[in-house]
Amino acid sequence: MKKQKVSDAVIHRLPRYYRYLDELHNKGVVRISSNSLGQKMDITASQIRQDLSCFGEFGQQGYGYNVAELRSEIGHILGIDSGYRLIVVGAGHLGHALLQNFDFQKVGFQVDTAFDVSPALIGTKIHDVTIRPMEELEHYVEEYHPNVAVLTVPQSVAQPLADRLIALGVKGFWNFTNVELSTQTKGVFFEDIHFVDTLLTLSYRISRPEELY
Amino acid sequence: MKKQKVSDAVIHRLPRYYRYLDELHNKGVVRISSNSLGQKMDITASQIRQDLSCFGEFGQQGYGYNVAELRSEIGHILGIDSGYRLIVVGAGHLGHALLQNFDFQKVGFQVDTAFDVSPALIGTKIHDVTIRPMEELEHYVEEYHPNVAVLTVPQSVAQPLADRLIALGVKGFWNFTNVELSTQTKGVFFEDIHFVDTLLTLSYRISRPEELY
Repeated sequence: MKKQKVSDAVIHRLPRYYRYLDELHNKGVVRISSNSLGQKMDITASQIRQDLSCFGEFGQQGYGYNVAELRSEIGHILGIDSGYRLIVVGAGHLGHALLQNFDFQKVGFQVDTAFDVSPALIGTKIHDVTIRPMEELEHYVEEYHPNVAVLTVPQSVAQPLADRLIALGVKGFWNFTNVELSTQTKGVFFEDIHFVDTLLTLSYRISRPEELY
Repeated sequence: MKKQKVSDAVIHRLPRYYRYLDELHNKGVVRISSNSLGQKMDITASQIRQDLSCFGEFGQQGYGYNVAELRSEIGHILGIDSGYRLIVVGAGHLGHALLQNFDFQKVGFQVDTAFDVSPALIGTKIHDVTIRPMEELEHYVEEYHPNVAVLTVPQSVAQPLADRLIALGVKGFWNFTNVELSTQTKGVFFEDIHFVDTLLTLSYRISRPEELY
């Protein structure tokens, strides 16, 4: 494995590679050339080869990629086989929707439990995940050390809540609060979900349909 | 305005530009250099200049950009001032969360109404938006011609529903169903929300914290 600084752009393309390869794999495709994969993904074959070269040697000149192998290698690079565990903090409508519909297992995450302040929710289960009272959050994290917290709480509590969880050792935040979170602690990462970006992309496309063909 | 084919990469960066400029504008920042903007956004100044050159001439050599002007010009390019109207199809947990928390108005979209099959929801309001029965969908779209449909329905009905709406003239789909939608109709666009990509990016980062500093 070569050691080099991997750019943000490459990091953001990795999940897309995984998603496309997973789809091809499920369709029973065994091999694919970088040209065909590039066409599907709307990037160039040389971009694909360059991206993958950050992580080692993949595929054989003239034979393309073995789909199952490349899928599992990229999955490994992404940490899908690391056994990460997460908690969902906030079981309102968005938290509920994620617990109910999102296939965490498929990308290697186990959902430990969820937390909420609402007495109506505490003690109930959503898709087999128990909702616990927020008062138990600190004790739970101290004892079970989940790697990631999904934040689906109101904006006003987002940063203080993140601070508490960081102090307890949580390393990753899947942040749906629309608050730009920050920390001084090294090794802690936030992935902010910006719903607005995709809606604006859509707005652009319907505004200029002639440009896209 | 120059006419040229704008790449997907540029189109995807435009909403980010808008988001950062909007934030700067709200903080009262009047001017910003492409260097400072690039540092904030983690891209190079020359990338910014190159991206913006697709759409005309912005900023003055040595003076940087007027934040308010560039924000409104990019907003215009994105179609924020086009008066687009949308409907939300599916008022389950995710639809509910979007109606309740997402600031559609801020990016120039008016939410006309929402549709659902559940008798318990029909006739209720979420954040001033009325939930109508699915049986009224066709008639409503024929009469009011919304530009965009937000799809927060079960996977099994996603494609047939999109087909019906496309036949009635809907041009854009903000697609939360995790189904890859397609159409033969020109001028129709899908923006798929891939929650999984950001969770995998997070997984990557917590797997290789040493690479990121």
